[in-house]
Amino acid sequence: MRDAYVVGAGQSDFGAFPDESYRSLFRTAFEAAVASVPKGFDPAAVDEAVVGTLGVGGRQLGLSGPAVTEHVGLGGVPCTRVENACAASGFAVRQAVQAVRSGMADVVLAGGFEVMTDASADATKYWLGVSGETEWERLSGTTFAGTYAQMAGVYADRYDLPRERLSQVAAKNHENGAKNPHAQLGFECSVEDAESAPVVADPLTLYHCCPTSDGAACVLVASEDVVAEYADEPIRIAGVGAGSDRVGLFQREDLARIPASERAAERAYEAARIGPDEIDFAEVHDCFAIAELLAYEDLGFCERGEAGDLVAAGATERGGDLPVNTSGGLKSKGHPIGATGAGQVVEAFEQLSGTAGERQVAGATRGLTHNVGGSGGAAVVHVFEREESEEVGA
Amino acid sequence: MRDAYVVGAGQSDFGAFPDESYRSLFRTAFEAAVASVPKGFDPAAVDEAVVGTLGVGGRQLGLSGPAVTEHVGLGGVPCTRVENACAASGFAVRQAVQAVRSGMADVVLAGGFEVMTDASADATKYWLGVSGETEWERLSGTTFAGTYAQMAGVYADRYDLPRERLSQVAAKNHENGAKNPHAQLGFECSVEDAESAPVVADPLTLYHCCPTSDGAACVLVASEDVVAEYADEPIRIAGVGAGSDRVGLFQREDLARIPASERAAERAYEAARIGPDEIDFAEVHDCFAIAELLAYEDLGFCERGEAGDLVAAGATERGGDLPVNTSGGLKSKGHPIGATGAGQVVEAFEQLSGTAGERQVAGATRGLTHNVGGSGGAAVVHVFEREESEEVGA
Repeated sequence: MRDAYVVGAGQSDFGAFPDESYRSLFRTAFEAAVASVPKGFDPAAVDEAVVGTLGVGGRQLGLSGPAVTEHVGLGGVPCTRVENACAASGFAVRQAVQAVRSGMADVVLAGGFEVMTDASADATKYWLGVSGETEWERLSGTTFAGTYAQMAGVYADRYDLPRERLSQVAAKNHENGAKNPHAQLGFECSVEDAESAPVVADPLTLYHCCPTSDGAACVLVASEDVVAEYADEPIRIAGVGAGSDRVGLFQREDLARIPASERAAERAYEAARIGPDEIDFAEVHDCFAIAELLAYEDLGFCERGEAGDLVAAGATERGGDLPVNTSGGLKSKGHPIGATGAGQVVEAFEQLSGTAGERQVAGATRGLTHNVGGSGGAAVVHVFEREESEEVGA
Repeated sequence: MRDAYVVGAGQSDFGAFPDESYRSLFRTAFEAAVASVPKGFDPAAVDEAVVGTLGVGGRQLGLSGPAVTEHVGLGGVPCTRVENACAASGFAVRQAVQAVRSGMADVVLAGGFEVMTDASADATKYWLGVSGETEWERLSGTTFAGTYAQMAGVYADRYDLPRERLSQVAAKNHENGAKNPHAQLGFECSVEDAESAPVVADPLTLYHCCPTSDGAACVLVASEDVVAEYADEPIRIAGVGAGSDRVGLFQREDLARIPASERAAERAYEAARIGPDEIDFAEVHDCFAIAELLAYEDLGFCERGEAGDLVAAGATERGGDLPVNTSGGLKSKGHPIGATGAGQVVEAFEQLSGTAGERQVAGATRGLTHNVGGSGGAAVVHVFEREESEEVGA
């Protein structure tokens, strides 16, 4: 089984861009990924492409993978669109790893995109709803804020979580996002701001919720056989794990955890032969502040019920023991559905390359990304490790 | 690189099933696939699932992969939805091969489904249109019949093709489909019937066009390490190839060929280390009769301009030198978008297992499937070989 490496990663700004198309955003991300490759990159090297998108708005619902790859000059290259709701491009990266490990490709482009902000409020509600269970959630009026509010309610009740902990997640992620030039909500938000914001779905206030976003992100994955052409200290994809679960929240036994994340994390740690205590930083799927707290527990960063303590102690701040969402997360950086998973890998790449600027985690050598589809119908976790040059291919 | 094998494949009937859901159709296909495994199969062995669907009607547009796999009892198994328009599940099978060859899975379920017949005519037009180029095709009113009619017009003009050749394709495929219990249009259709049917988009008449269909199909792919548990004479996936192209027809240089198919075929033959003359039978993407003729040429079954002669000579009939679409093809068996690619593999599996009944091609040991997305924005080709028991894992 050949090892797979991230040799480049880049993204567009996340935000509201009425003058951009999904194609132009994807091109921006692709060009940023190409420019990030330490030793240079010729796009003609791409053997295959995998593109994640939900297809919000239905602009190019079929064949949207080839529609964006042709636009960046990869018209003849095999391209597959993958979709697992908000985890679409996390799964695209996983598929790129499989393509490389299978021996069927040496260099694979994994990317994602979404354009959401030009839809009407009703259309946005529809398009977000399509990732919930249809009959018993979407058609009965359940929104994602409502779904995660139910999870927050169960969690808060069981573990006596004060709402302030949710606000601390938001404040931390905004503090990081304010240092990320690509962030959609790149401003600071205090705990008090989050506490006093209008309630969207009790207990979640406006600042406990990620925005709707336009954006794209791209990751270049290469095999151990060719990685030396692109980087001297490449970033190895040490572990990959995925899991799924019942799509409908009402079909799950326990709303205070996301079993798909647990399964994905277990498989990723096993593949990387490490435990959660060996992770230096993580990008987790904080579509709502409660989701970040659940992730701490699902990923094994703390015991059940202790996530609130972790954030209250500052452990997951940028200067803490285990910085989480140094990019700003979905909360502050933004959440263009199909771009989010690949966008998390962009942050991991920058942190492990030492190019994260003001957001840099000192001495980061191993990072994790965690991407969830819907309310937990699917999840994917990756573990990344920076290698020293003498170790390549060893 | 580990070899991958098809150890089971099955499908639901294709047709109009107002009392079925996408989940129940998928379950029927999954159970048929499980029942087809020569030495028996425990669904708990499935390590991963890949599901192709376009999502016509938007019932469960996000997370539709986990939504169907949970319904067949695979709720925790990693599942990815893939979509490349009408080639969705052909690419799902390809992805299953990559998963097995990567070493990340031993047994993978690759399936697909679509429910189309309960949509209104306008909705069906929209949902089929989404696989065309949006701005310059769908929104300007181009339908797929219109797209393929343009290709037929260019081809007929260049090579002086009489419309009768299109009708001969239809008659041949209906003759096969009449022997397939799963076929939607399982009746015979004479050349005269096809000639005299109403024109849908000149030169294509009604019987030159496939129907809209509901249905599902599933394929079980296993690694060489475990294949002996399932079959003594397993069917090896000897070659896999994929290609893409400009999504919009107007962006292509030549309308009388599908370059994505040529690229996919070239890669599949190279991987299988064979040429087109070593294929015993083929399932090709005949969404419109002209598409089958283009496929003959794109797949190398004959020279450019000779496809009409091939069908006229009866070479691609069931008793001919190279039987094509013994299942009835999309034309007669039906074309539930996301199920079609996996459904082609069902026919290849039955032919190579000697279980194709009245449709059996005598002595078939090597078959090919060819699945196209849209008007050729993506294509995927597989080559399958029946192995003798002593060769397994060799």
